[in-house]
Amino acid sequence: MKMNDYIELINDKLDQFIKIEYPENIFKSMKYTVLLPGKRLRPIMCLETCRMFGGEVEKAIPTACAIEMLHAQTLIHDDLPCMDNDDFRRGKPTNHKVFGEAIAVLAGDALLTYAPQIITKHSTDLTSDTIIRILNEYFEYAGARGVIAGQVVDIESENNEYAQEEREKILEYLHTHKTSDLFQLAMRTGAIIAGVNENQLTAITNFAKTFGLAFQIADDILDEISTFEQMGKTLGKDKTSGKLTYVSLYELEEAKCKLSCMLDDCYAIMKQQNIQSEIFEDIIEKIKQRVGI
Amino acid sequence: MKMNDYIELINDKLDQFIKIEYPENIFKSMKYTVLLPGKRLRPIMCLETCRMFGGEVEKAIPTACAIEMLHAQTLIHDDLPCMDNDDFRRGKPTNHKVFGEAIAVLAGDALLTYAPQIITKHSTDLTSDTIIRILNEYFEYAGARGVIAGQVVDIESENNEYAQEEREKILEYLHTHKTSDLFQLAMRTGAIIAGVNENQLTAITNFAKTFGLAFQIADDILDEISTFEQMGKTLGKDKTSGKLTYVSLYELEEAKCKLSCMLDDCYAIMKQQNIQSEIFEDIIEKIKQRVGI
Repeated sequence: MKMNDYIELINDKLDQFIKIEYPENIFKSMKYTVLLPGKRLRPIMCLETCRMFGGEVEKAIPTACAIEMLHAQTLIHDDLPCMDNDDFRRGKPTNHKVFGEAIAVLAGDALLTYAPQIITKHSTDLTSDTIIRILNEYFEYAGARGVIAGQVVDIESENNEYAQEEREKILEYLHTHKTSDLFQLAMRTGAIIAGVNENQLTAITNFAKTFGLAFQIADDILDEISTFEQMGKTLGKDKTSGKLTYVSLYELEEAKCKLSCMLDDCYAIMKQQNIQSEIFEDIIEKIKQRVGI
Repeated sequence: MKMNDYIELINDKLDQFIKIEYPENIFKSMKYTVLLPGKRLRPIMCLETCRMFGGEVEKAIPTACAIEMLHAQTLIHDDLPCMDNDDFRRGKPTNHKVFGEAIAVLAGDALLTYAPQIITKHSTDLTSDTIIRILNEYFEYAGARGVIAGQVVDIESENNEYAQEEREKILEYLHTHKTSDLFQLAMRTGAIIAGVNENQLTAITNFAKTFGLAFQIADDILDEISTFEQMGKTLGKDKTSGKLTYVSLYELEEAKCKLSCMLDDCYAIMKQQNIQSEIFEDIIEKIKQRVGI
């Protein structure tokens, strides 16, 4: 499947999976952020990992969509006034700007249980044991030891005065969790559904972790060099709020160099595992292009 | 088991189930609200329902604790400034007053996945099929068609001018979801773990729904007639914020009368199902006492 086929498939399924029921406002609010135009990177990586290891893409669709819903949940709550206080996301007003703060909090809450419910309800061709394994991955990466840990350390790192060495450690920790965790969840679950062995699972976890860090470095660089029109969100906020980013820590050129190395590492893992994926090559090359490396 | 034995057991397990890991603040914040002194009604009802139908209480402990964590989650987010804006809960400062709004939002988010993870991790003596059945109950009652639907309608009912008949319908809807749903979840999962048949499950669901509505009417009455010292939270806020409550809709005496009828209905269901439970009798009689009926 090509990138656009994946995106179309995922958008269709996301639309089908969230029906507008009573009370309408909460379902509309959930659907609003889930269906904002996006690259659908996480669900694509879940489906493509499944395909790459010889699994049936169809079987991974509920899990892939659940991960996109979880991603939307993190965006809704991260954008709240008490968190990053962002007014725009993907070029549109953020959820709380459209539905109000109370509904935005509740829509995020709702997605956190709606997402795994999609997995249990629609994964009719997975065994109960596999479903529980997938759910445990979801709970771990979505929770207080996963993506939330990243967000907590991100908040706590604002305007804090750390020594350089400590800053490097904290930055890697927060980006591993804030960004890599959802990529790890996506690729691990895709691989589990395909029935990989432990070695393959470890390799793909390393790929996802490295890719996630690279993706975050690219995001930090773009936050520095792009415009609102290119990114669809308010930029330069990390700097003014004193947040720890790769660019604030390493300067622009060194960050680009780090990014380039990490993307090379991704290629190396694919080669070593004898994995072929035009989709992953495409994703990596697009990141290089945007950042100009 | 007596009421106090249940409370002690639940408090011990809740304390064990939430270990303080890095980043500490998020785990401390989760634990703070989960361990606030409380009646532990929902987990007790889960365990007691399991016992009443001949099940092993031990098997229901992870589910019972998960439901108490979910309950704590709803309290943390309901108390936020953008929701009910409450400063006190169970006589102590609310979560966001201690940890700040951002951490309070994230602690609620974390509990929403931590709770079902407790079920999958610790229910080692349940089959995978039973665990998935329990999780589906959890997702449905915790989500946008469950407790969150109640909260949404509650927010939307504030200061709205409805006709009397419509107000009655809305009030029943919002309390069914905001309050009864967690009691239904507790009793249904306890019953499922005990291995009940469909008839018994329907009966216990009706009990839980009726009990939940009665519990909410009692809460509305106590909001009107109690003091801060008795309740541990700021009172009379429902009235000043123009919220729909049983007392605003029916006056005090009629609300008391409705409450009394509902508690009688609960006794009737127990008798009809030939169920014996000193614990449930105790809970019902305590509600009568507090409200003075």
